[in-house]
Amino acid sequence: MVGLTYMERALRAARAAADLGEVPVGAVVVGADGTVLAEAGNRTRMDNDPTAHAEILALRAAAAALGQERLTGASLYVTLEPCAMCAGAIAAARIARLYYGASDPKSGGVAQGARVFAHPQTHHVPEIYDGLCERDCAALLSTFFAARRDRA
Amino acid sequence: MVGLTYMERALRAARAAADLGEVPVGAVVVGADGTVLAEAGNRTRMDNDPTAHAEILALRAAAAALGQERLTGASLYVTLEPCAMCAGAIAAARIARLYYGASDPKSGGVAQGARVFAHPQTHHVPEIYDGLCERDCAALLSTFFAARRDRA
Repeated sequence: MVGLTYMERALRAARAAADLGEVPVGAVVVGADGTVLAEAGNRTRMDNDPTAHAEILALRAAAAALGQERLTGASLYVTLEPCAMCAGAIAAARIARLYYGASDPKSGGVAQGARVFAHPQTHHVPEIYDGLCERDCAALLSTFFAARRDRA
Repeated sequence: MVGLTYMERALRAARAAADLGEVPVGAVVVGADGTVLAEAGNRTRMDNDPTAHAEILALRAAAAALGQERLTGASLYVTLEPCAMCAGAIAAARIARLYYGASDPKSGGVAQGARVFAHPQTHHVPEIYDGLCERDCAALLSTFFAARRDRA
């Protein structure tokens, strides 16, 4: 169950983001040989960066680690369905396989909304596997937002 | 014609990108008071970063300059129609007004393809003005790709 192990690392990154007051989403990039190239949690607030979603940070770090613009053959594990921005970045990076946990009716851009991979303007379409560790991924988000409402 | 002046700066950034062998797209972020907060050209190759489109770099630099995650009230000028990734970033940054030059049938995600701002999953919709300096913006790209074909 190697997929679960990578997603567990993504969940761990998501929990670490929550501990820092960031929306708990985590992502892991795994090379074609199974090596973890990068992992990251959301950091939009801490970094003052609207693009600092977990996926973007992990893709950028993996490309920097490899010294190349494209991550051909690599997989991305992320706890939440990517938004349109992140789906576009996944296409730009030529990610081979996208695994995600919870579906995101509010901001998702893969299976709903912009459906970024469903148009001829995408330069690449990864294999997509959804629902991985879905319950844990969704629970993390709902617990985080419930706690924020309680504090409000 | 203050709009043309900002777009001319975006064109200058695009030309500088071309000189470095990058696809010639340039972007400028202008604050609500008319101050230029950031400008950038594409740097995906030089930075080994699949997300380093001109828009993403300019949005990140502007947010860093202001020390805040959102660019509420700011405008983005870009020589080419943003792709889905960049359109998602524009929504995340809460850009008030998007001005772009050439339309992009191949990769555009605003007026075609993913049409990122046309779905309820977008968190923000900017005012959109297209066709600004369209001829110059498009000529820069076609000259660049024609030269690359000649070298091939």
